[in-house]
Amino acid sequence: MTRPTTIGLDADDTLWQNEQFFRLTETRFQALLADYAAPEDLSTRLLESAKRNIGYYGFGIKSFTLSMIETAVEISEGRAPASVIGEILAAGREMAAHPVETLPHVAETLASLTGRYRIVLITKGDLFDQERKLAESGLGDYFDAVEIVSDKSVATYERVFRRHGDGAAQAMMVGNSLKSDVVPALRAGSWGVYVPHPLTWAYEHAEVPADAARFRELADLGELPALIEAIG
Amino acid sequence: MTRPTTIGLDADDTLWQNEQFFRLTETRFQALLADYAAPEDLSTRLLESAKRNIGYYGFGIKSFTLSMIETAVEISEGRAPASVIGEILAAGREMAAHPVETLPHVAETLASLTGRYRIVLITKGDLFDQERKLAESGLGDYFDAVEIVSDKSVATYERVFRRHGDGAAQAMMVGNSLKSDVVPALRAGSWGVYVPHPLTWAYEHAEVPADAARFRELADLGELPALIEAIG
Repeated sequence: MTRPTTIGLDADDTLWQNEQFFRLTETRFQALLADYAAPEDLSTRLLESAKRNIGYYGFGIKSFTLSMIETAVEISEGRAPASVIGEILAAGREMAAHPVETLPHVAETLASLTGRYRIVLITKGDLFDQERKLAESGLGDYFDAVEIVSDKSVATYERVFRRHGDGAAQAMMVGNSLKSDVVPALRAGSWGVYVPHPLTWAYEHAEVPADAARFRELADLGELPALIEAIG
Repeated sequence: MTRPTTIGLDADDTLWQNEQFFRLTETRFQALLADYAAPEDLSTRLLESAKRNIGYYGFGIKSFTLSMIETAVEISEGRAPASVIGEILAAGREMAAHPVETLPHVAETLASLTGRYRIVLITKGDLFDQERKLAESGLGDYFDAVEIVSDKSVATYERVFRRHGDGAAQAMMVGNSLKSDVVPALRAGSWGVYVPHPLTWAYEHAEVPADAARFRELADLGELPALIEAIG
């Protein structure tokens, strides 16, 4: 099989920690509303609200903050005091300002691939937040292109790999989400490389097709250069 | 002077109505909080909150909704009931779902320029919301490229016009914001064309440098093709 010429990389929980900030904030949210509902009920309702709001707001911290506020209003049947809403707003701002923590082996992996392959950052979520994190990570110079997209579908990968490479069949997508990074990239004809992260949002689970010859799984990003070398 | 080869166009209130939806929502916000403060005080506090939150959240509907909620909590000193917060959330969702209303002369102007110049949509704000509006507007096919950016600085125009054209000196930027569309484009060496919109957010005002030879002002977008023809 032909080695890919273009490597797409997801950002959140592939290059740097992300979900842990959402989990910490969710725990804080549960504590703030402990008078109104049990922790697990709050999480269930919050997930429902977040999924519903994707259609209005997309992904990211602002969308999550609005979903926490919505859940607080609904689950307290309008009784949650405005001070609790104020605390949720403060938690959202803290998420938006948290320092970027890159994952192990990321910088050296990017350094070894850059110049030999076209490296494209492909991330969904909030434009403003993703730009901030990329700038703060210090990884920006490793990428030939950055695509911040509103969703990651088969069409997204076809478009991005046509724009920045030799088409999806000559490309590889690497990330921690089966649903967003791996399965749609496989469907587009690319390699789909799954690098699990211990914390992955329930929304991001998906089944890999049984006949996916181009599916691979790695323990961490440090194994990526050897995997690419082994192809073709 | 040499005619530009690339035309950048702003989106909100240049191609389609936008600010009017924010104003309508602000009026609704004033009515919801009439028990706590006078309308003008609410607007002043909301503008302060919105400006402050740009650093955390950037521009757009989600950021504005979070600022409305923050203002409600602060101005009521925590007394605003959660039902009011729920109403603000509903107002934000309605903004996020409002139908797109293109401005006069937009479609025929784009039709007359497409193919003869590189046409680039350059808009700041919320990725998710801007993509939705572009898709719904039916104008997408007129553009050679779409750049949704987190801010519009001199560096933004240099980068975008280098990427999608022959550099900033060979480009023209057209929009309703002096601060975001016209002045930074002029500073980058491009043409800066101001097409005023009767509703423009206070944040978007700026002074045009007195020596700006490439500054022009048009009554509406219908005058743009003749302006470009008249150059060089």
